[in-house]
Amino acid sequence: MTRQQLVEQIFKKQSYLCVGLDSDIKKIPKFFLSQPDPILAFNKAIIDATKDLCVAYKINTAFYEAMGVKGWQAMERTVKYIGDHHFKIADAKRGDIGNTSDQYAKAFFDTLPFDAITVAPYMGVDSVQPFLKFYGKWAIVLALTSNRGANDFELKKMAPEDTRYGVNEFLYERVLKTFSTWGSEENLMFVIGATHPDEFAHIRKMTPRHFYLVPGVGAQGGSLKDISEKAMTKDCGILVNASRAIIYAGEKENFAEEARAIAQQYQFEMSEYLKARS
Amino acid sequence: MTRQQLVEQIFKKQSYLCVGLDSDIKKIPKFFLSQPDPILAFNKAIIDATKDLCVAYKINTAFYEAMGVKGWQAMERTVKYIGDHHFKIADAKRGDIGNTSDQYAKAFFDTLPFDAITVAPYMGVDSVQPFLKFYGKWAIVLALTSNRGANDFELKKMAPEDTRYGVNEFLYERVLKTFSTWGSEENLMFVIGATHPDEFAHIRKMTPRHFYLVPGVGAQGGSLKDISEKAMTKDCGILVNASRAIIYAGEKENFAEEARAIAQQYQFEMSEYLKARS
Repeated sequence: MTRQQLVEQIFKKQSYLCVGLDSDIKKIPKFFLSQPDPILAFNKAIIDATKDLCVAYKINTAFYEAMGVKGWQAMERTVKYIGDHHFKIADAKRGDIGNTSDQYAKAFFDTLPFDAITVAPYMGVDSVQPFLKFYGKWAIVLALTSNRGANDFELKKMAPEDTRYGVNEFLYERVLKTFSTWGSEENLMFVIGATHPDEFAHIRKMTPRHFYLVPGVGAQGGSLKDISEKAMTKDCGILVNASRAIIYAGEKENFAEEARAIAQQYQFEMSEYLKARS
Repeated sequence: MTRQQLVEQIFKKQSYLCVGLDSDIKKIPKFFLSQPDPILAFNKAIIDATKDLCVAYKINTAFYEAMGVKGWQAMERTVKYIGDHHFKIADAKRGDIGNTSDQYAKAFFDTLPFDAITVAPYMGVDSVQPFLKFYGKWAIVLALTSNRGANDFELKKMAPEDTRYGVNEFLYERVLKTFSTWGSEENLMFVIGATHPDEFAHIRKMTPRHFYLVPGVGAQGGSLKDISEKAMTKDCGILVNASRAIIYAGEKENFAEEARAIAQQYQFEMSEYLKARS
C-alpha cells in the first residue's frame, strides 16, 4: 500500500487506528479452543467487527511463533484474510546483516503479503536497506519505544558528531536523523511510543513528513489526545495502535461487540482530532 | 545446555566451532529439490558430516521464514534432529517489550528446544529479561556486529554517563557494560564480529568471563587466529561461527564431504589454539 492509498483510507474512514492482533491462545475466549485453528477464528471475528473502524492491522509475530508451526500457519491465514484494503504490519522487530535481511524482506513482503515490517536499528544501514527496495512496502524503524527499557539506550545521550559545534543528542534522535537519509516518506516510518508525549513536538520537527506508528495507548497508559495534538500533520502522519485494550475488551460470547465498542470510541475520538486539524 | 556442559564439549572435541545453517533453497544442491523437505534433508547431511567437529549449530531463522510455514517446519525438524549434545542457537535477533519477549522466549526455549537465541539490545532491560529466566538457556546479545552497518550506531561515541569524570565510550561498549549487569556468565553471551580484531583485547578486558559468539570468519573475512589469540579464556570463552564457508563448500554429490573437509580444517586450527592456551 502506497502512502497516498494509506492517507486516502485514513480520511475516508476518519480513523488512524491500527488494531494489534497480539492474539494469545491463553487469553482468547475459551469457546474458540474447540476450533481447528482457534487463533484464526478469533482473529476473523475481531477483524469482521473492526474493519470499517481501522485502517491497519498489526500482527505481533511473537504470539504466533510461540505456537510453532501452527502459529505461523494462523499468521499466514490471518494476513490473507485481512485483504488489500487495510495496511498490514508485521510487528516482527527484525534486522540482520544484508544477506539475512534480504531473506526477512522475502518472508514478509513476498511469501507473506504484509505491507510493512518493524525493524530494529542497531545493526545500521545494511540491516534496513533490503526492506526499502519494494514498491509500496515499508520499513517501520524503532526510534523511541513505549517500554521502560527505552531509558537504557534510546534515551541516552550521544557525543556530538561534530566535536566543535555539535550537540549531545539522544540515541533515538540519531536514529531518526540517520534513517531519514536512507529511506523516504514513501517507504519508511518510525515507531514512537505514546508514553513519551513530551518528546512528540520535537520529534515532529526533526521528521516533519514521516508517518509514525504509535504503540503504548491503552494498556501502557499513553494519551491519544496528546500525541494527536502534537504529532498530526496535514496528511495525518500517525497510525495509533491499540492491541489488548481492543481485542480483550470482552471474554464472553459478545467479545466481538465489546471489541467493536472500544474501536468505535477510538475512531470517534480520532475523527474529532482529524476535523480539528483540517 | 549449561556453561559447564558447553565447556566440557569444547575440550572433549577440541573445537569451538559453530556451524551456521543458513540453508537457502536457492543454494543447496539441486538434487535435494525432489525431496519432500529439501532443507531438512540438506541440513541432516551437513549435520551428519560435521557433528563430531563442532560444538554448536546456529539456525538463521530468516532463511526458514522466507519459505513460510514449510520453512518453520524445516526449522523445527532440524533443531530436533540436532539433539542434545550440541549447543543449539536460534539466530533470530529478537527483542520487544516485556510481554512480547516472553512470547519469543516461549517460542524458542519451550515450543522449540533451542539452547540460546540472539537478541537485539536497542529496547533495553525488559526486552532481554524474559530470555534470562530459563535454567541452562541463553540470551546472546548483539554488541559489535560483523557487518558494515556496525559503523552507523554501534561504533558511535556516547556522551559520558558521569559528565565530570566519564569517558566517551562507544555504544557497543555501553551495551556490553549494561547487559553484563543484567545477566551472568551462565545465561548471557555477546555477539562480537570477527571483522573487528583490533577491538577484541579491549572487549575481553571489559567482559573477562563471558562467552562470545563470533560471526564473520570465512565469507565476511575475519581471521580465526586473531580472535582466538585475543579473546580466548581458560574456559575457551568463544564460539566461532562459519556458515556459507562450510555448508556451501561443495555443490555436487560430494558436498557433505567437502563441508566436512572445511569443518575439519577449522577444528584442527582450533585445537592448536586451545593447546597453545593451556
